[in-house]
Amino acid sequence: MSSKTPTAAVLIIGNEILSGRTKDANLPYLGEQLAGLGIRVVEARVVSDVEEEIVNAVNALRAKVDYVFTTGGIGPTHDDITAASIAVAFGTELHLHPKAHADFQRHYGDDLNEARLRMAHVPKGAVLVENPVSVAPGFRIENVYVFAGIPRVMQSMFDSMKHELNGGPAIRTRSITGFMLEGEIAAALSAIQDKWPQVDIGSYPLMKESRFGTSLVLRSNDHTALDSAYADVREMVLGKGIEVISED
Amino acid sequence: MSSKTPTAAVLIIGNEILSGRTKDANLPYLGEQLAGLGIRVVEARVVSDVEEEIVNAVNALRAKVDYVFTTGGIGPTHDDITAASIAVAFGTELHLHPKAHADFQRHYGDDLNEARLRMAHVPKGAVLVENPVSVAPGFRIENVYVFAGIPRVMQSMFDSMKHELNGGPAIRTRSITGFMLEGEIAAALSAIQDKWPQVDIGSYPLMKESRFGTSLVLRSNDHTALDSAYADVREMVLGKGIEVISED
Repeated sequence: MSSKTPTAAVLIIGNEILSGRTKDANLPYLGEQLAGLGIRVVEARVVSDVEEEIVNAVNALRAKVDYVFTTGGIGPTHDDITAASIAVAFGTELHLHPKAHADFQRHYGDDLNEARLRMAHVPKGAVLVENPVSVAPGFRIENVYVFAGIPRVMQSMFDSMKHELNGGPAIRTRSITGFMLEGEIAAALSAIQDKWPQVDIGSYPLMKESRFGTSLVLRSNDHTALDSAYADVREMVLGKGIEVISED
Repeated sequence: MSSKTPTAAVLIIGNEILSGRTKDANLPYLGEQLAGLGIRVVEARVVSDVEEEIVNAVNALRAKVDYVFTTGGIGPTHDDITAASIAVAFGTELHLHPKAHADFQRHYGDDLNEARLRMAHVPKGAVLVENPVSVAPGFRIENVYVFAGIPRVMQSMFDSMKHELNGGPAIRTRSITGFMLEGEIAAALSAIQDKWPQVDIGSYPLMKESRFGTSLVLRSNDHTALDSAYADVREMVLGKGIEVISED
């Protein structure tokens, strides 16, 4: 992959992910979607609902990558502190966003209470990200996109802004999985990796029907190199007489 | 939760998690298991198979929490650089561990090649963590436990060392889920949170049968306070005439 490949980080905010109670579904979604747009996710963090944790993570990640996506913590309850924490990270304050305020008045009418009005507050300088599923918006400030945690809402927010991203050629994946032990193919695989530095070659052991197998996964935004490296890997695997489970 | 509750961080190493191709199952497992031992996971990171990334993350996390658990990158292939990176993080070197070496000789016999022998190398000063599933061991150096990425292997490594951890009273969870909007219960919930600072109260919106609902989740290692706070939450929810979906 070229060193100019745009990069992204995902910041998952919420105690429920750290406790193990809720399995995150947003990183896999964003990883795949961004790869399709030619953007590579290079780091993810999960932090608890604590302002200092969110501030430190946002500031570390936004300095490091082209795009940061946060998920979670933008609702109306006491543990929803993402917007306020992002404001602190950017050295600014929350304000009541006029368009969000108008949308909330129309949507909630007489049910617009103080808690709900919190969701219409965004850091000064932030631009709203539309939420087609429910009324509460996400927002962007500089290179940081702030999304909801519910996967369906997060996905609709991503859909409504993804045209803004400056990506590149899609990062494509090819893989071959077989009943091979990593130790059998490590040396040959390393030689193929050295031959094709534009391609990321990963080796992932697995267990299937109580037998050990391995998936060899190749990824690149250089599609010609990807196909050539894949041909080399496939030839190596078949040449060793390995029983193939799947290819794609 | 008491400020003395022991803390942990999970460091997931591997491009396949960032790409979205593989969904991590190790953080949910460790989050739940550690809660049972009274240890709270306060942060998780996912980093790519790049030495500098692993070194920086390990050093940041081991200074911050009582226990760090890493998963992934301890196999025999070119992308398995966890052990070498941990050695760099601790300012030491890899060495061939005598017991691991002996185990490998016995297990592989004439098939013990250079790639496999890499897995018997650990940082100087590290103590092996037994792997009852396959021969390649994990290890511990200071407060950092280095585990395999395959969930079944990771779990067996955790089982073989968990008695070493200094935990405390189990962190227990109680929850109530209903067809309520967060905006309806936010103010009352915040008052209950203020009343019971020993209990972490989280509010998690969800969608079920195209309707919005919310799970209210309470966690604490102070079991008396947990039950009392839960009684308050339950009374508040029922008092508002909310249709309850589940309780536990």
